[in-house]
Amino acid sequence: MAKKVAVVLAGCGVYDGSEIHESSAVYVHLSRAGAVTQFFAPKISQMHVVDHGTGQPTDEKRNVFTESARIARGNLKDLNDLKVCDYDALIIPGGFGVAKNLCSWAVAGKDCSVDKAIEKAFKGFHSAKKPIGLCCISPVLAAKLLPGCEVTVGCDTECERWPHAGTAGAIKELGCKHVNKEVHEVHVDKKNKLVTTSAFMCNSPIHEIYDGIGVLVADVLKLA
Amino acid sequence: MAKKVAVVLAGCGVYDGSEIHESSAVYVHLSRAGAVTQFFAPKISQMHVVDHGTGQPTDEKRNVFTESARIARGNLKDLNDLKVCDYDALIIPGGFGVAKNLCSWAVAGKDCSVDKAIEKAFKGFHSAKKPIGLCCISPVLAAKLLPGCEVTVGCDTECERWPHAGTAGAIKELGCKHVNKEVHEVHVDKKNKLVTTSAFMCNSPIHEIYDGIGVLVADVLKLA
Repeated sequence: MAKKVAVVLAGCGVYDGSEIHESSAVYVHLSRAGAVTQFFAPKISQMHVVDHGTGQPTDEKRNVFTESARIARGNLKDLNDLKVCDYDALIIPGGFGVAKNLCSWAVAGKDCSVDKAIEKAFKGFHSAKKPIGLCCISPVLAAKLLPGCEVTVGCDTECERWPHAGTAGAIKELGCKHVNKEVHEVHVDKKNKLVTTSAFMCNSPIHEIYDGIGVLVADVLKLA
Repeated sequence: MAKKVAVVLAGCGVYDGSEIHESSAVYVHLSRAGAVTQFFAPKISQMHVVDHGTGQPTDEKRNVFTESARIARGNLKDLNDLKVCDYDALIIPGGFGVAKNLCSWAVAGKDCSVDKAIEKAFKGFHSAKKPIGLCCISPVLAAKLLPGCEVTVGCDTECERWPHAGTAGAIKELGCKHVNKEVHEVHVDKKNKLVTTSAFMCNSPIHEIYDGIGVLVADVLKLA
C-alpha cells in the first residue's frame, strides 16, 4: 500500500510563503518513493505580501490557500479538513510563510503564537505516533509545540554559510535540544518521530538542499 | 570553466506564469552539473491572474518580473538586459505564462505574437549557435520563431496521458516537424541546437517530469 503524506503549505515564495524549491523537492522525492502526496493549506490571509524582486513588503492582500495552490497545482485541501487518520505522515516545507502565516515566529521569535489549525494537525500526528518531517525554519513549530524535542536547523554558529544560525539559540531557549547537522543530513528525534533538515537555512547550492530533503523524505517514510 | 545558463521565467504558477516544478527542476539539474544559473524575466504585466485554487481568472494585476522573483529567490535580471555573449545557453521552462506572457499562444494559437524581448533573446542565442532548451509548452516559441525546426511536446494523439496533444498539430501547421517522445526523453534538433521535452504536457508522476528535465539540461550543456 502506498504511504499517504499530508504536506502543509504556507503560501508561495520564500519571503512570505512556502519556499518553492523545498516544496517541489518534497513533492518529487515523495513521488519517486511511490508515496501519495496531498497538499493542505489554511484559508487565511498572509501576514503580508513581499515583492520578491525588491524584498520590500507591498500593500497587497493575498490568501495563503490561494497562493499555495500555485505549488500544489490544484492538489490542495483546506487545512481544517485534514484528518490525521487518513495519512501516514506530515511534512512541512520551510520558507518565511511558516514563520509568518503558520505561526508568528518572524515577529515574536520564541514567544510566537501558532495557528490553531496547524497546532491541531501537528499535535494530532504526534499523538498518533506518526512521523513529522520539517525543513528549514519549520522546526520552530516543533520547538514551540513540543518542548524538550530534538531538532536541527543546521548550525548554531553564524557565518556566511549559516546566516540564520540565531534560530538554533532561540530553539534552545524553548527547552529543546538543537543538533548541528550539515545540509545533506537530517536529525531524527526517534522518541517524537521528528525528522528535521536545514535546507535553505544553509547558504549552499540548490542541489545539495534538494538532496538533504531527499534524506528527510526517506527517513519520514521509514518511520511511517 | 562553469557554463553560464540564462533561464527565462514568465511569472510564478502553472496557470498564469512559469510552471514552478519545471523551473525548480531546471535549477536543481543545472546546479548539480556545476553550471551557473541566471534567471531573467520581462518587466511586463501578466496577461491575467488566475486563482490557482479555483482555476478562475481574478481582477488582480501582477507583474511578470515581480512574480518570477518568487522562483528566482532574487537571482533575477530584466530580460531586456540579457546579453547573449555573456551566456552559453538559454533554457525556458513551461507553464501557461509562456503562452500568455511571453507570447499570445494561449489565445491565438499558431497566429500568436511573440514578446519582442524574448524574440530578441531567442534569435540571439540561435544566431550565435548556442543551445536552447525548451520544456512543456515552450517549444511553441521555437515553432513560431524558427519555421522548419524540429521539436517535441510529447505525443500528437490526445488521451488521458497526453491531454494537450493538439499543440503538436498546431506546431506542424507552422511548418515544423513534431517528433513524438516519452516524458523521460528529449528531442534534439541538432541543426538548430534545440533541445525539447514534454514535461507537464504529460499527465505523469512529478518525478518522471523531473527526470525528463534532467535529460534536457544534460543535453543543453553538452551542446554548449
